[in-house]
Amino acid sequence: MKSYVIGIDVGGTNIKLGLVDSQGKITARNNFLTAPYASSKKSLINALAVAIKELIRRGEVDKKSILGIGIGLPGLIDPAKGMVNFLPNIPGWKNVPLKEILEKKLHLPVFLDNDAKVVALGEWKLGAGKGFEHLVCLTLGTGVGSGLILDGRLYRGQTNTAGELGHVPLNEKGPLCHCGGSACLERTIGNRYLSEKAAQVYGKEMTPEQMGQRAQAGDARALRFWKEAATHLANGLVSVVNLLNPRCIVIGGGVANNFPYMEKTIKTVLKKRALKIPVKPLLIKKSLLGEDAGILGAQVLVRHATIR
Amino acid sequence: MKSYVIGIDVGGTNIKLGLVDSQGKITARNNFLTAPYASSKKSLINALAVAIKELIRRGEVDKKSILGIGIGLPGLIDPAKGMVNFLPNIPGWKNVPLKEILEKKLHLPVFLDNDAKVVALGEWKLGAGKGFEHLVCLTLGTGVGSGLILDGRLYRGQTNTAGELGHVPLNEKGPLCHCGGSACLERTIGNRYLSEKAAQVYGKEMTPEQMGQRAQAGDARALRFWKEAATHLANGLVSVVNLLNPRCIVIGGGVANNFPYMEKTIKTVLKKRALKIPVKPLLIKKSLLGEDAGILGAQVLVRHATIR
Repeated sequence: MKSYVIGIDVGGTNIKLGLVDSQGKITARNNFLTAPYASSKKSLINALAVAIKELIRRGEVDKKSILGIGIGLPGLIDPAKGMVNFLPNIPGWKNVPLKEILEKKLHLPVFLDNDAKVVALGEWKLGAGKGFEHLVCLTLGTGVGSGLILDGRLYRGQTNTAGELGHVPLNEKGPLCHCGGSACLERTIGNRYLSEKAAQVYGKEMTPEQMGQRAQAGDARALRFWKEAATHLANGLVSVVNLLNPRCIVIGGGVANNFPYMEKTIKTVLKKRALKIPVKPLLIKKSLLGEDAGILGAQVLVRHATIR
Repeated sequence: MKSYVIGIDVGGTNIKLGLVDSQGKITARNNFLTAPYASSKKSLINALAVAIKELIRRGEVDKKSILGIGIGLPGLIDPAKGMVNFLPNIPGWKNVPLKEILEKKLHLPVFLDNDAKVVALGEWKLGAGKGFEHLVCLTLGTGVGSGLILDGRLYRGQTNTAGELGHVPLNEKGPLCHCGGSACLERTIGNRYLSEKAAQVYGKEMTPEQMGQRAQAGDARALRFWKEAATHLANGLVSVVNLLNPRCIVIGGGVANNFPYMEKTIKTVLKKRALKIPVKPLLIKKSLLGEDAGILGAQVLVRHATIR
């Protein structure tokens, strides 16, 4: 019998669900906006359960062929306990035993993890990082984060917060970050700060997406803008390369659409500043899974439930 | 029958050997200066073999009770092949199959690894990092490095160069480092640069050791000197904490003798700049093995030969 897994990508804006077969193909989809349900935990959990049932209906598969449900969430997760400790962008979520609640409702095994870690699992098993033992998978968006695959498994650290690349400092002194630290990488290349920077260049607020369109049109100011952003990113990646010696760095998240305007600069800076030996075998790649990275990564949680 | 392992710490200045029992106790020692043998590979390898035989004689143990020889070396090592790829401070060592050569000479199994990694193994199994699953073990001296124990095993990375903390940049721009990069942590708190800084304070060159003696005597300028050094070190450690989320950071190497004058500043800076969640359970400890870390770590290579 064919087996399926449900992968769910919980974001602050959208919640995306996919039914995924054993080849990593998404055979049915569902999604809904987060905002209408963000006011209470209970309504969001109910909306999730309803959306899962609808997904199974759309997929036209026997429930017995579904191995389980994997969920990536934007915050602090305790995967061993199946607990959502804290979601910074969705109010009211503090120490919620989501695994237990959903398992009772749906009678399917549920696995949770942090979204950046889930995306790394996806790129590692099905995407641009396929087959690498040592892999760093960046997510560039409003937040800047990463998931680390080290020695062929997901590395979580002591409090499941390893990989917080957005809060690697670029300098000893610099602007305050919302995390309480200062000069953090995210404080320079997070979406909001890229938009602020774009406003300085063009005299009006522009999203990273709009700046990408300008760059595509060959606008010299936009190309310079992305070169500068890439320089800051690469300066942060020097620490990653020298500390972690990965085989591959995969760049994902919305900003990764501008990879063509950043790639050369990232490689040049790393070649110049990072140690020669670890730079030599290093590959820098764009995410392969794109928008589906969250769904596909979440289902890896279930398929490889033995991964620590 | 009791079992023993020979641990060898190869340094640019001294080579130290110890016969270590199964409790981690050094029951016999030998050592010699590196310089007289540094002119040729062959003479250094012969000196090593002679010193090992003398150590076994001093230990008064049956050679059959010796499980093997572990060696930590200051450079690029391929532990799987037992190859010394490059030693920056001992000329002429390039792709030397040291394991094979010594095994032929001595008829005992030989294991090699990089010195910072070996020290981390020692502190993890027998020292200040005993029992921790996620551990970063710093060596502060002429070079600044670290060994990483992640998920309960030594993490090496793609080219066995993971943990190069000395080459984490403190700033986007800064003084050139001998590695080819710039603004590296080692370029600020490596012994040579600490001595230069001391010269600025006192008008004459002073070693970190002498600066430690001044601090111990209560000299305000020396105390300020160590506080500044600790601030730079902690600024580098913010990246380590946010990326690796370790349970414990052990500080070793010669400069660690000044830990009492650095400890408070390191903790204050980390509490201020690093993410709250990973900082909470974090322990900062001084090395417990001190001068013997290299010998004791090298013998761990043999006792835990199955560690990847």
